[in-house]
Amino acid sequence: MQPVDDAARQLARRLIRGARHGALAVLRPADGFPAASRVLLASDFTGRPILLVSGLSLHAKALANDTRCSLLVGETGKGDPLAHPRLTVFAEARFIPPEDHSREGLRERFLARHQKSALYADFPDFRFGVLEPLGAALNGGFARAFELTADDLLDETLEGLEAAALRARDHMNADHGDAVDMIASRHVGETKTGWRIATLDRTGFEIVRGDTLHRIEFPGGPVAAGGYRDVFVELVRQEDPSKNATD
Amino acid sequence: MQPVDDAARQLARRLIRGARHGALAVLRPADGFPAASRVLLASDFTGRPILLVSGLSLHAKALANDTRCSLLVGETGKGDPLAHPRLTVFAEARFIPPEDHSREGLRERFLARHQKSALYADFPDFRFGVLEPLGAALNGGFARAFELTADDLLDETLEGLEAAALRARDHMNADHGDAVDMIASRHVGETKTGWRIATLDRTGFEIVRGDTLHRIEFPGGPVAAGGYRDVFVELVRQEDPSKNATD
Repeated sequence: MQPVDDAARQLARRLIRGARHGALAVLRPADGFPAASRVLLASDFTGRPILLVSGLSLHAKALANDTRCSLLVGETGKGDPLAHPRLTVFAEARFIPPEDHSREGLRERFLARHQKSALYADFPDFRFGVLEPLGAALNGGFARAFELTADDLLDETLEGLEAAALRARDHMNADHGDAVDMIASRHVGETKTGWRIATLDRTGFEIVRGDTLHRIEFPGGPVAAGGYRDVFVELVRQEDPSKNATD
Repeated sequence: MQPVDDAARQLARRLIRGARHGALAVLRPADGFPAASRVLLASDFTGRPILLVSGLSLHAKALANDTRCSLLVGETGKGDPLAHPRLTVFAEARFIPPEDHSREGLRERFLARHQKSALYADFPDFRFGVLEPLGAALNGGFARAFELTADDLLDETLEGLEAAALRARDHMNADHGDAVDMIASRHVGETKTGWRIATLDRTGFEIVRGDTLHRIEFPGGPVAAGGYRDVFVELVRQEDPSKNATD
């Protein structure tokens, strides 16, 4: 284990924010067997993973019986699968009742990046779930292991910042689609057009186009109140900020 | 749940055989929390997953304390992550002591597809592990769910067949590299040369080149004693057998 530094915290947060899916481990109700299955993922404004699960699924039944779970995120790609960073988040799962005031915001964030899930998200047996992190194990590649706390994973927020982020996103998507495409081109090398911002948080945002998603971090660190406009102006202006981009 | 048929069995076996890595869920020794982490994978001749783990890892300590685990295999790719088939194998893990007679064969199969693991496979704290399947949950995409038994996952073998498979592989790689490249081209569309057969079993084989691996099924079903020669002759001869190929 190595001492946790800002680079480790940022990598862990990026892995959660950028994950379209992950492996969720739960306890099988009948016998307590550990059970891993694939789930689609989003994150709330502070960085808690969001799930959408059918009450008929094994993992929903398991979490209704015992809320303890872990979530493995971080995709492999070319080369050795163990050379790619990954994170195991240990968490307690909390299902959101249909009438809960927080449901609409979670639903919005989830469907912004999984548009096809709108087909079944409102079925009576489906629930959004939030994973409340308790800690995490980060493996950044060979011999780069870190043990993180919940505080290492979550962003602090500011009064009114989440609403400001939503307005900034809607404004960018509605009135500055060309700027979003320019960001996609300059920051993650995507040359096609038609990108839109799916979700924003204090330290970055995700752009989507069909089934492709990229996470982009704000180069200047966490946004202050009222700071989204300046951040996007800067991102569009930057010529070669590739070292701040992740995919 | 749908009734298990041969297509479901074949898909499940292909997912195990073709997996270079997977998510392993175990029980954290301190508190029984379910813990998911990434592991490299191979399979033994009958289809049991093989792991190589450091005794210092959380999953090794967990399995030493409680052998129950599950393994999620089946990679995503383009498009909706939930549209790609995946399999959760419930299993008991068994570590292989250094002096065990079966270790050399498992080591051979594992290193044939993870060559870089030779760097640490023989370190004193590393052990090969075999997962003895108890059953599995197959998700073949939306609304295609199956519950399988251990028998559904494992191939029956024949006396002497494993040794014959090893000889067939070594002969193909040593004397017919051009035929292996031709199979790579015709069956999985790989145009580069330098492919070699990593592991063979009764129903198919894996070819590797660097960090790329493809599973290819034998078009005629399980091989009979002494049948490997005919199977490879047929595979090289076939012009367009793409419907038998998987990657």
